[in-house]
Amino acid sequence: METISENKCFDGIQGVYRHASSSCNCDMTFGLFLPREAQDGPVPILWYLSGLTCTHENAMVKAGAQMRAAEQGIALVFPDTSPRGQGVADDDAYDLGQGAGFYVNATQLPWSAHFQMWAYLADELPALLTTNFAIDPTRQSITGHSMGGHGALTLAMNLPGRFRSVSAFAPICNPSTTDWGRKQLTAYLGTDETTWARHDATLMMQQSGFDGPILIDTGTADQFLDHLRPEALASAIAKRRQQATLRLQPGYDHSYFFVSSFIEDHVTFHAEALWG
Amino acid sequence: METISENKCFDGIQGVYRHASSSCNCDMTFGLFLPREAQDGPVPILWYLSGLTCTHENAMVKAGAQMRAAEQGIALVFPDTSPRGQGVADDDAYDLGQGAGFYVNATQLPWSAHFQMWAYLADELPALLTTNFAIDPTRQSITGHSMGGHGALTLAMNLPGRFRSVSAFAPICNPSTTDWGRKQLTAYLGTDETTWARHDATLMMQQSGFDGPILIDTGTADQFLDHLRPEALASAIAKRRQQATLRLQPGYDHSYFFVSSFIEDHVTFHAEALWG
Repeated sequence: METISENKCFDGIQGVYRHASSSCNCDMTFGLFLPREAQDGPVPILWYLSGLTCTHENAMVKAGAQMRAAEQGIALVFPDTSPRGQGVADDDAYDLGQGAGFYVNATQLPWSAHFQMWAYLADELPALLTTNFAIDPTRQSITGHSMGGHGALTLAMNLPGRFRSVSAFAPICNPSTTDWGRKQLTAYLGTDETTWARHDATLMMQQSGFDGPILIDTGTADQFLDHLRPEALASAIAKRRQQATLRLQPGYDHSYFFVSSFIEDHVTFHAEALWG
Repeated sequence: METISENKCFDGIQGVYRHASSSCNCDMTFGLFLPREAQDGPVPILWYLSGLTCTHENAMVKAGAQMRAAEQGIALVFPDTSPRGQGVADDDAYDLGQGAGFYVNATQLPWSAHFQMWAYLADELPALLTTNFAIDPTRQSITGHSMGGHGALTLAMNLPGRFRSVSAFAPICNPSTTDWGRKQLTAYLGTDETTWARHDATLMMQQSGFDGPILIDTGTADQFLDHLRPEALASAIAKRRQQATLRLQPGYDHSYFFVSSFIEDHVTFHAEALWG
């Protein structure tokens, strides 16, 4: 593993690291914020999964999550959104290929050789983090934005016991029914929609739910509401009697100005679960 | 004036606007955060001047200033660091030309046609803001990072009564003696160093000081300390008995991770002056 940069930040360290990924069969880069407390022993960790077009960097520099994470003594990890590089398949569209891994293990050509983001996030990167950094694997929570909110919700529901809490900003809630979803799921997983179900937060909520608290914020002025379908997930949550807080934030859109406005609430929400 | 974007942010509006600048003889773009309180009447304003290579956007998305500004009911303006465009002179180096206006009125060719950042910030943009937005011109303060810290300090000391407080992150403190300074001042103002003096914070401190509080943070691990010379300004401040707080922050470097770690302190510092 190679250290790309380490900057002191809120009395902790904001690092960027690169490593050869066996899941994705290419080099992968991630950001990791370690609070000062990590000098004394393992700390809880909050995963932040980013949206379409993002790298590990966007949330790391724009979301403003480090301040409250430092106050709470919690690490933050910012994975990339896809495999990358010269030999990695790509597409001209912003919503397929590099920058748009959709948090699945691709089974279809040309994607299957590298696009194994599910395995990377469920297995490889957690093991790498706990081996190399002062991270407590028994105290993990997860959040994300847009495509990353989809990733956070589906990982949390598919890996019971892994995450103590899950939250999302403007998540893609029901991708098997929407433009941000059917295109990617077809490309990566093929046309057999039974393989899609575990990658649809609404379907997962109907099937199994989540054993812990959920917080979801979506802006009422989000320009992509048709791609997100918060109403589908809200209905599934209510029908299941799932412990959850759903907030429609008046006037907010899909941007990082929305994420940064509420990140403090989300880190505090996760801190309660991680330290509880 | 054209609205490029407006995003709701911490219950206020983060806008980006473009206008034809008479000072710079080209279109100029700036970011402006207005807190919710601006809906009810004029609010105080904190200027944030950015460093080399930056546009209006860097601090607006990376510094994390909006949260505390919203809490305090203060507007934030993020000007660009130079004139820009096809017809505007430029240089291959990152530290001259576009992105590197150095907050002076250039008198030398080829720069003098457009590089009038001092006039733009001292006169044109303040008038534009108070005409078009709910800004209280009697309550202004100023901060900045690196080259922008130089701009903030020199504007504050050259315009007595304009700003109630001034702060800076890793400012270029004594540019008439350093690489980040002599090159730019020679290019923009020529070789007569008497014209440089008002653009050197240390020389201005020796000559006139500032009638209000000053806060300056610099990281002890700043990779550009030789270009900044905080020791020169510290000496001038102490010799003058200038009201000021100078902090050398252990382990922090020149990045926005440093700025974001202490922006809350700076906004709070200015809020005390602006609301006092």
